[in-house]
Amino acid sequence: MLQMLKGIGASSGIAIAKAHCLYTAAPVIEKNSRLGAGAELERFGAAVSLAVTQVRELKELTAQKLGEAEAGIFEAHLLVLDDPELLGAVREQIRAGETTAEYALQEVSQQIVETFESLNTEYLRERAGDIRDVSRRIMNVLSGAATGMKSIEQAVIIVAHDLTPSDTVQLNREYVKGFTTVAGGTTSHSAIMARSMEIPAVVGAADALQEIRQDDLLILDGEEGVLLVNPPPEMIAEYEGKRLELERRKEQQAKLAALPTLSSDGHQVELAGNIGSPGDVAAVLQHGGEGIGLFRTEFLYMGREELPSEEEQFQAYRSVLEQMGDRPVVVRTIDIGGDKELPCLKLPKEENPFLGFRAIRLCLETEEQALFRTQLRALLRAGVYGNLKIMFPMIATLDELRQAKAVLAQEKRKLEQAGIPAGAGIAVGMMVEIPAAAVMADLFAPEVDFFSIGTNDLIQYTMAADRMNSRVSYLYQPYNPAVLRLIKGVIEAAHSHGKWVGMCGEMAGNRAAIPLLLGLGLDEFSMSAPSILAARECIMQLSQAGMEELARKALSMGTAEEVIALLRQEAGRRT
Amino acid sequence: MLQMLKGIGASSGIAIAKAHCLYTAAPVIEKNSRLGAGAELERFGAAVSLAVTQVRELKELTAQKLGEAEAGIFEAHLLVLDDPELLGAVREQIRAGETTAEYALQEVSQQIVETFESLNTEYLRERAGDIRDVSRRIMNVLSGAATGMKSIEQAVIIVAHDLTPSDTVQLNREYVKGFTTVAGGTTSHSAIMARSMEIPAVVGAADALQEIRQDDLLILDGEEGVLLVNPPPEMIAEYEGKRLELERRKEQQAKLAALPTLSSDGHQVELAGNIGSPGDVAAVLQHGGEGIGLFRTEFLYMGREELPSEEEQFQAYRSVLEQMGDRPVVVRTIDIGGDKELPCLKLPKEENPFLGFRAIRLCLETEEQALFRTQLRALLRAGVYGNLKIMFPMIATLDELRQAKAVLAQEKRKLEQAGIPAGAGIAVGMMVEIPAAAVMADLFAPEVDFFSIGTNDLIQYTMAADRMNSRVSYLYQPYNPAVLRLIKGVIEAAHSHGKWVGMCGEMAGNRAAIPLLLGLGLDEFSMSAPSILAARECIMQLSQAGMEELARKALSMGTAEEVIALLRQEAGRRT
Repeated sequence: MLQMLKGIGASSGIAIAKAHCLYTAAPVIEKNSRLGAGAELERFGAAVSLAVTQVRELKELTAQKLGEAEAGIFEAHLLVLDDPELLGAVREQIRAGETTAEYALQEVSQQIVETFESLNTEYLRERAGDIRDVSRRIMNVLSGAATGMKSIEQAVIIVAHDLTPSDTVQLNREYVKGFTTVAGGTTSHSAIMARSMEIPAVVGAADALQEIRQDDLLILDGEEGVLLVNPPPEMIAEYEGKRLELERRKEQQAKLAALPTLSSDGHQVELAGNIGSPGDVAAVLQHGGEGIGLFRTEFLYMGREELPSEEEQFQAYRSVLEQMGDRPVVVRTIDIGGDKELPCLKLPKEENPFLGFRAIRLCLETEEQALFRTQLRALLRAGVYGNLKIMFPMIATLDELRQAKAVLAQEKRKLEQAGIPAGAGIAVGMMVEIPAAAVMADLFAPEVDFFSIGTNDLIQYTMAADRMNSRVSYLYQPYNPAVLRLIKGVIEAAHSHGKWVGMCGEMAGNRAAIPLLLGLGLDEFSMSAPSILAARECIMQLSQAGMEELARKALSMGTAEEVIALLRQEAGRRT
Repeated sequence: MLQMLKGIGASSGIAIAKAHCLYTAAPVIEKNSRLGAGAELERFGAAVSLAVTQVRELKELTAQKLGEAEAGIFEAHLLVLDDPELLGAVREQIRAGETTAEYALQEVSQQIVETFESLNTEYLRERAGDIRDVSRRIMNVLSGAATGMKSIEQAVIIVAHDLTPSDTVQLNREYVKGFTTVAGGTTSHSAIMARSMEIPAVVGAADALQEIRQDDLLILDGEEGVLLVNPPPEMIAEYEGKRLELERRKEQQAKLAALPTLSSDGHQVELAGNIGSPGDVAAVLQHGGEGIGLFRTEFLYMGREELPSEEEQFQAYRSVLEQMGDRPVVVRTIDIGGDKELPCLKLPKEENPFLGFRAIRLCLETEEQALFRTQLRALLRAGVYGNLKIMFPMIATLDELRQAKAVLAQEKRKLEQAGIPAGAGIAVGMMVEIPAAAVMADLFAPEVDFFSIGTNDLIQYTMAADRMNSRVSYLYQPYNPAVLRLIKGVIEAAHSHGKWVGMCGEMAGNRAAIPLLLGLGLDEFSMSAPSILAARECIMQLSQAGMEELARKALSMGTAEEVIALLRQEAGRRT
């Protein structure tokens, strides 16, 4: 009988296949060891060693398949596997209680996880997740349990309570057509990985494990967040049709990969990719990206106890620049602090981290600006190897921009004096993500080579609404005319000084927003790699002159709802 | 020998007098009772009763002298004195341990205070302060200790580690010329009270108790935050001259109390007062306020477990309106939530409270809008008794404004249908404190009767900098040209629709900002009562046409520093 389950669409696409349910039966754990403490300690040590090997392999695999940033999670796991707080306590418990290794591991890890989860810091909650993941891995080795994934030899949709990053990266794309989990949201690790791997996924499907039985036939719609269990033949046919249409469309779009991005009336813009690590470049090129519009450099600082060296950073930046050849690469200097807690920088907890000490504020204010100067030196050296552009985040005042530029110029001079090659003619720009910068764009424009509008933050500050807070998320309105007026003002100010404007927030890759942004005169759209080809297809069908008219209408409106209705009407007219 | 100590200027004015040091010697407390548990329980009960009487008296006194809002702290103390968690535990300890009442009180209160302080919520930290204050009071009664304040019979400057609100309100203005504390900041309770009572004060003077001896001669400069210990005669003469000049100036200004606020070229503006409770009205009238530009209604909700009734609110609003007669009274509907935690509303802790669920957001979204509707009904009914204007806080979108106005209209209709008198022709306005509202002011203006610019929040959102966060406080820039452009835009939009614009942030009462705001065309300046006369004196000396020119210059500048230099230069030219 047909059943429909609702979840959250986490990765778009349609999958039709049999359910493969992963029930996580708790292993039966005996308390008292029959082998004695010595033997249990040996078993435990061997299991840890094997777990380390497994995690190292996974890390390699992830870095190759998905990029360094995604592999960072396994770096954190390796830290746990080297952490005396966990391992030492387990050994202690084995010795003291003459218990089995399994029992000691379960007791100790549960206790640490509970303590970490009870404390109200994002950082410790994430560590709790790492410890749980690692403990499960060691437990599986100890109990000889298979993950249940290796046995898959036919097309399936995985149904699980949750998938750890380890599980997700091991999914065999040949057989695994999609997955659904009971837990998770759109920003959970497995959801992010699913999008990178382009596997359709529905997360947060509360009833999935109860309602779906092994080998039930499933339709999974990752766009709508819907699961259809045991659908009738005509429904299967309908979704198969949709699936083929999506595939056909993807094939069509793939043909656009090598084309320039021209509107129907011949106006050219640039479509670029947002990346988080050198490993992400391949996907951008494959999807026809004409440049990198945002290289987030935080991955270098994530999940580690020490700051990355100049040399390590230089290699990472150089790798991206070399992969991109002549194409432009916009690197954003580190945007850390605030909500992005990093173990290598011990920053105090703030009452309002989104309005706090982060990004350029932290770079300019920390002692001797060492963190910032190291990054700038690495960038300047890497600039020799490609078309580098440097961009400063969270600029609010002309002073900050001038200071940041002065530090960059100083480091360049120092390199030259030391005879170290530095890139020549590197363009310097800034993010426009603070209302003050948008309002003052006419005075910033003469002092930069380009702007990149960071809509995620700009919207949140303009509306005074934390985009992560569900109680005020209705105020996170990309189409609020106030936001559109600020964007328009920034673009006009830049153009009147002969500078270009990009956008690297989520809005730039949103097909509903693209006609409007084209009409507002945006020059560069930067988005996640999988969105690029659809954006190009969309722009090629639009007349820029027509979209200017659309933008004029939108700017005269009073509410986001009116603008959204206008865009819907326009989209309807085109199809 | 002369010594200079630096602190924080918390309340301006100059005081010259002998030091009266309050050393808080810890009382010697014996553990074991020689009287027996029964007698100790009786002693404790009697001490609590006496403490209740004292606090009730203090509450009365504060309400009369400083207003209801300031008296709220003693309401909280009465709650503690009725709290079984504290008192019951003390009695339990006396019974169980046969200890003295002092010992039991000390043990129990310390434990509760430590627990509350260790938890990371503002609310519990404040409760810890209340418990400490109350426990000290009971302890003083038990040990028969005098506070050291009653014995003062000559002119002194009090030197103390800290002054509790109870201490501050008991200061005898006849003898106490000023005070200085080791602890505290400009927003500490005692600092706020000192400003209300117009007692010069320097807080955060770290070395005061070590360096100042009983009867040392002191000069205290509450403007500069400076203490001069044992100054030479010529310095005393100099400061005595300054003190007399300040007094003379105050007398001069007092003559302006009944005059209209006219610039030298005949442009009239309105100077109004910000109040927190009906008790604050007298000071506004005394200082020549022409209206109330901001009546904060949060005092009704503070420090209590249940929401205030419609009747209680009605009486409070009516009292303010009757006291003000024909003069305008702008009441802001409740701005709670966010950082303003209230025990009567159980709101979840937010990651970024300044960007969170507060003010109009909370009023419109909470179940059935009961909280909001009750307040609006009380306001409408009170509107019969004076010149009421209602203002909505934190409006970000036209939708919110329209919804709030619709709820107001509904409640008005309901009252009319029930035959209950409601004020007629009540003006309805909104705070402009979110960048989106400022940017869209031209579309908001036709739908309101007036704007009031809330600079405290507008600056913080425009600059994306939490004004309470010391690491980014350098970005809290009232004179940033981005902020000035937004203010200018709001005023122009309002005027072109024939509406007036007020300002009720700290900027409006700042003498450095007033020339600029006059030049930008601001119609109403609302500030704390003690600032009104100085503001009138300032405006009477200015030509509005000249200030328009000044504002034009400021608007063309790039940085806050440049604007500040311009204003300094202009102020220098005038004196």
